[in-house]
Amino acid sequence: MAKNYNYVILVYDIGEKRVGKVFKICKKYLVHFQKSVFRGEITPANLIQLRAELKKVIDEGTDFVAVFKMTGDYVFDEEIIGVRLNDSESLLL
Amino acid sequence: MAKNYNYVILVYDIGEKRVGKVFKICKKYLVHFQKSVFRGEITPANLIQLRAELKKVIDEGTDFVAVFKMTGDYVFDEEIIGVRLNDSESLLL
Repeated sequence: MAKNYNYVILVYDIGEKRVGKVFKICKKYLVHFQKSVFRGEITPANLIQLRAELKKVIDEGTDFVAVFKMTGDYVFDEEIIGVRLNDSESLLL
Repeated sequence: MAKNYNYVILVYDIGEKRVGKVFKICKKYLVHFQKSVFRGEITPANLIQLRAELKKVIDEGTDFVAVFKMTGDYVFDEEIIGVRLNDSESLLL
């Protein structure tokens, strides 16, 4: 039985020309965590939508998006070493 | 009872002068996944060691390392959109 994923950690590495668009798309569905890292709860339907929107924008030959899908944020603990940028600064991609 | 974390996903955002050193340290303990993303099994003792080595190298005022700790890689599924760089190329940080 397929697991019911409703939480993701998303990491991307996008060319300069497209990274602003990718940032805006991710921000619609997830919480911005740090520079090129988003995370948060997401329904399967919204994950399909997010994927479709990203595919329209990114250059699949050079850009990279990794989505780690989980059943919830209880499956991991998180640790930060170094600075935790606040949202305004973190737009400096 | 504290969970027994022995798998991590590590994401970093490091200043140009230090990123090479950080890459080498991470590569000692984890598998390079993509540009600024490492992951893999790691013992609690090695995680302590990795953290200590990173802290010696990074500038905690500007650099950022996030470690997502899990009990194993069975807790997530992963999806890649776009290009999956092979190891040699992925050194272009």
